[in-house]
Amino acid sequence: MSESRPIGVFDSGIGGLTVVKALRDLLPNENIFYLGDTARVPYGNKSAETVERYSLELASMLTREDAKVIVVACNTVSSVSIPKLRANVSVPVIGVIEPGAQAAIATTGNRHIGVIGTRATIRSGAYENALRCPLLVPLIEEGMLDDKLTDQTIARYLDPMIAAGIDTLVLGCTHYPLLATAIGRALGENVKLVDSAQNCAVAVRNLLDRQSLRAEASANGRLQVALTDSADNFLNVARDALQLTFGEIELRALP
Amino acid sequence: MSESRPIGVFDSGIGGLTVVKALRDLLPNENIFYLGDTARVPYGNKSAETVERYSLELASMLTREDAKVIVVACNTVSSVSIPKLRANVSVPVIGVIEPGAQAAIATTGNRHIGVIGTRATIRSGAYENALRCPLLVPLIEEGMLDDKLTDQTIARYLDPMIAAGIDTLVLGCTHYPLLATAIGRALGENVKLVDSAQNCAVAVRNLLDRQSLRAEASANGRLQVALTDSADNFLNVARDALQLTFGEIELRALP
Repeated sequence: MSESRPIGVFDSGIGGLTVVKALRDLLPNENIFYLGDTARVPYGNKSAETVERYSLELASMLTREDAKVIVVACNTVSSVSIPKLRANVSVPVIGVIEPGAQAAIATTGNRHIGVIGTRATIRSGAYENALRCPLLVPLIEEGMLDDKLTDQTIARYLDPMIAAGIDTLVLGCTHYPLLATAIGRALGENVKLVDSAQNCAVAVRNLLDRQSLRAEASANGRLQVALTDSADNFLNVARDALQLTFGEIELRALP
Repeated sequence: MSESRPIGVFDSGIGGLTVVKALRDLLPNENIFYLGDTARVPYGNKSAETVERYSLELASMLTREDAKVIVVACNTVSSVSIPKLRANVSVPVIGVIEPGAQAAIATTGNRHIGVIGTRATIRSGAYENALRCPLLVPLIEEGMLDDKLTDQTIARYLDPMIAAGIDTLVLGCTHYPLLATAIGRALGENVKLVDSAQNCAVAVRNLLDRQSLRAEASANGRLQVALTDSADNFLNVARDALQLTFGEIELRALP
């Protein structure tokens, strides 16, 4: 059976496009419908109850788009809402935390794994020994991907982790792959980066294979992007840095 | 007539407490009801239509608290929503932009006025020749009020303005008074700071006097704080830096 139903991806805003990029690279035949809640972004400093409520609304919007699987392209949402989503949504739900955590465990040699993420993700306890780095997201959204201020901020966060002897660092926020070069520079050669976006894409491929949900191998996957409010400049930053191609942004009203 | 009805103050989040602080200092007899929309903060990167809709909801919540005047303690909202609010609310509405702009005009000697604010405030054109400084809010919310990274970020923004010969700088975001010391240091002695929070408080006092709405001079004004979602750490940063006293935070559900 051909499966042209889209992979539904949602995020609190634009950052989840790093997951879309990883999905496009790995699964070029798949249609993807991306929904970013720019009307209420960011979720990183909101309560678990609020994040749970918002994510159920977004998931049901994706169900109405006939999504065959729902990808939670946001660490904050993944850290608090996955059980509730799985209980309320009829299609499989995949987040970014489990795949990244498993990859980190497979990567580390000395079992010293560092994680950086938003306040809500870290507070959730989804990752242990994680460090909140709230200043990185605004720097990324300003497009300051290659900037001395950004390097200094990264050093402020990572130097104590490096001193503590980590050999693996998990990027626990979907914005962070946009800073992978700068972060890699700060870490040096002895610390491996684990990108939860890439590992999430692998988990999606495995799930589609297991459930025979893959699109036809001859299909040209299409990417549709919808937002709950008009996009700001960060959409341009992400599109350029990720070299993603998509048509007009659609606006979708929240329920 | 004694007027114990509160001054209603709203903001997209916690930053508007700088306006509350200015009101408490100037009008200690007044009751104040503060409403922060922490469930949807920040507004700075949202569209004008969305900000307008949100601010009407908040204003009507304040009307239900029997507010005698509504203070918009947010430059972003003030820059886009004041006309709509005045058309839809039965009590007077005061924003932070007009009072600050008037004070700046009264302050400047060479008519070179700088303004710094969020992306939405600047985009609105409410201020001319204004500069967006989106990285300052996250630094403030992290409590990094006295920090080398913050000083470097301020310098990045202000050096070109100083080179352009401004003699007056308007703090066009209600978060910024928390950085007044660091900003003053960067500006040196030749540039005057205009704090829109303080000037807004003066405008509120003048309005209450004109309309005979002042509380009794013997009254002890009470400050109530309500939020649409649980507060994060920035509430502690603001409370400590501003030395504000208030009781339990109330939670108010959005309509």
